Amino acid sequence: MHIKKQRLLTPGPTPLYPPALHAMMASDIHHRTEDFRKAYRSCLADLKEVLHTSHDVLLFAASGTGAMDATVSNLFSKGDKVIVGSAGKFGERWAEMARAYGLDANVVSVPYGQVVRPGQLEEALAREPATKGVFVQASETSTGAAHDVQAMGRVVAKTGAIFVVDAITGLGTMPLNIDGWGLDVLIGGSQKAFMIPPGLALLSISPKAWRLSETSTLPHYYFDLKKEKKSGEAGESSWTPATSLILALAESLRYIKQLGMEQLVENAQLLAHATRAAVVAMGLELFSPGSPAASATAVKAPRGMDSGVIIKEFRNRFGAIIADGQGTMKGQIFRIAHLGYFDFADLFGVVAGLEIILKANGFPVTYGTGVAAVEQVYEQAAVKPQPVHA
Amino acid sequence: MHIKKQRLLTPGPTPLYPPALHAMMASDIHHRTEDFRKAYRSCLADLKEVLHTSHDVLLFAASGTGAMDATVSNLFSKGDKVIVGSAGKFGERWAEMARAYGLDANVVSVPYGQVVRPGQLEEALAREPATKGVFVQASETSTGAAHDVQAMGRVVAKTGAIFVVDAITGLGTMPLNIDGWGLDVLIGGSQKAFMIPPGLALLSISPKAWRLSETSTLPHYYFDLKKEKKSGEAGESSWTPATSLILALAESLRYIKQLGMEQLVENAQLLAHATRAAVVAMGLELFSPGSPAASATAVKAPRGMDSGVIIKEFRNRFGAIIADGQGTMKGQIFRIAHLGYFDFADLFGVVAGLEIILKANGFPVTYGTGVAAVEQVYEQAAVKPQPVHA
Repeated sequence: MHIKKQRLLTPGPTPLYPPALHAMMASDIHHRTEDFRKAYRSCLADLKEVLHTSHDVLLFAASGTGAMDATVSNLFSKGDKVIVGSAGKFGERWAEMARAYGLDANVVSVPYGQVVRPGQLEEALAREPATKGVFVQASETSTGAAHDVQAMGRVVAKTGAIFVVDAITGLGTMPLNIDGWGLDVLIGGSQKAFMIPPGLALLSISPKAWRLSETSTLPHYYFDLKKEKKSGEAGESSWTPATSLILALAESLRYIKQLGMEQLVENAQLLAHATRAAVVAMGLELFSPGSPAASATAVKAPRGMDSGVIIKEFRNRFGAIIADGQGTMKGQIFRIAHLGYFDFADLFGVVAGLEIILKANGFPVTYGTGVAAVEQVYEQAAVKPQPVHA
Repeated sequence: MHIKKQRLLTPGPTPLYPPALHAMMASDIHHRTEDFRKAYRSCLADLKEVLHTSHDVLLFAASGTGAMDATVSNLFSKGDKVIVGSAGKFGERWAEMARAYGLDANVVSVPYGQVVRPGQLEEALAREPATKGVFVQASETSTGAAHDVQAMGRVVAKTGAIFVVDAITGLGTMPLNIDGWGLDVLIGGSQKAFMIPPGLALLSISPKAWRLSETSTLPHYYFDLKKEKKSGEAGESSWTPATSLILALAESLRYIKQLGMEQLVENAQLLAHATRAAVVAMGLELFSPGSPAASATAVKAPRGMDSGVIIKEFRNRFGAIIADGQGTMKGQIFRIAHLGYFDFADLFGVVAGLEIILKANGFPVTYGTGVAAVEQVYEQAAVKPQPVHA
């Protein structure tokens, strides 16, 4: 018998920042008091700061899908023409949601593991100049592929359509110049790079997107962008907020501000780079080699091995929860997460564990091969010590 | 300088059950694992048990208003005739929501402090036999008044309409026989009698209400009752759940089960009864004397005194957060809460504090008068010791 620490190593929920978790203990706080308004205001202001945006930022008591819903139900009308760029399970969610709200959705989809090219959106927009919105994922979590939202934003900005980016796993894992790249609505969730449990959704919204809200006729109530903006300006939320998570977010944002958002992104990208190097060194194959995301690295299970075996072995041998493929990818890929509160020590553990699991299950790997690749990346990057806590 | 402990004494968020709060620390858990499914399943099963219902029970990552929205957007269609029984701020929320979704709402309203009589609903239903739904609050938190939902349910059951009850502060403070009284949809929130922070909404739904979902045409996505029922049967939520709050809820439900829902209701009712006795003994006036709720007792501020003064004094002198009136009642009433994790020691503190505050602000009160009234009720009821923790 050995000690097995429980480790949550998935691309959301991600490992939690302990001071943020502890902050939740103070949630015997009333949401219509100055004490709470202070925390709420600091969350909104700090979010604007770490997102580097002048756009309005709104918070919701909901998971990320709630902010996606808020965007569709507040900015569009039945029959509106929209384009969905779909590269996986979350792209399909945009398409499903557009249909649920009666939008006329043109779904530009690519096979899992690939990405929608900006040119494809450009062509679709040219074919339908009346398009009111373009929906994509910054990072498609299900396949570990990243979209070029900068180039896409340039394409969409030339049209009357707004560019809606689900950055739930993109935030904190890739540069996202919201104001500069024309990312009219950008959506995030608490349980990703913000290092706290799920239950809060957020979005930033540009003046171009606000204009659409003036003509939108879809009914909505709980998710009400205008009402939430007004409430937020008073340091409150429209409905009872998820106080415990707001307190946690205020704490994690202090840490992210101290670290710097660029540094957080670089951290994820460096870990992703090291992971890809390890994967190749061990003789495994990347699932999205062309445009890998830094949120999570998707790796193909070795031929003849179900990825579920690797997931199960991680749990049984090491107490670690690793992500399987989602949807049709289940059993075929596994995903190593990097977004948020991850460090090199986590990665050494994951790669060494993977080496042991692969060898034990008949895939030839020389112990240390993958870990050495990570060590090389660490050394080359000359990783500087960072503050442990804010 | 004295020690002032922070005390949250409002009708939601309410005082938190410490073991439930501590359970949130284990929220480094993935929602698609058997460990989490176990917690989620136990929440759903325990909710059915403490609600004493055979109806489906669903959970949402949202505040209570989210479950109200889910009910309207999943069960109705634009133009549907509905009746709203409105006795305060939350009744107005039903009316506002019905209008937001384009329903044809007949609002039967009474002045703040009074309640809608079952006969008023009966007349309204007789005038419009095509009515598809009747909406009320079990306990109108803004005024501390309780509706006779049993008699109302009998009236609605005779018609084709469904009876939708916002029991966000009714649950755990009054008997609610969901199946027996025809409460087709009953809505609750985590931050009330469930003794945990806000961020979870729940509802129970009858077969009669499910039938409406077959013809409803309002668009919706995040709040999807059918999808949530299917997910729940698999021990999951449709979207990422608020894991920390689910773990907290599982813990508080263990306690509520051990205590017994009847005992929880009796606890609130006894505290409410004692509070009313104290209010009268101190020479103050109840705001809803005719049908007082056990969720919170609304008390009129003495003539010439703004209730805001009492709220402020409680915070400054005793570190206690007491609720002011809401909406138009702000400054006129204050509310003493009883729902959930409240005991006699809390009430002794509140009433003694109130005596001090009243006297200091020029309202003549003999020290001990209100407290003695509470003590009398305690003695007469022969309150039996209950387990401190589950």
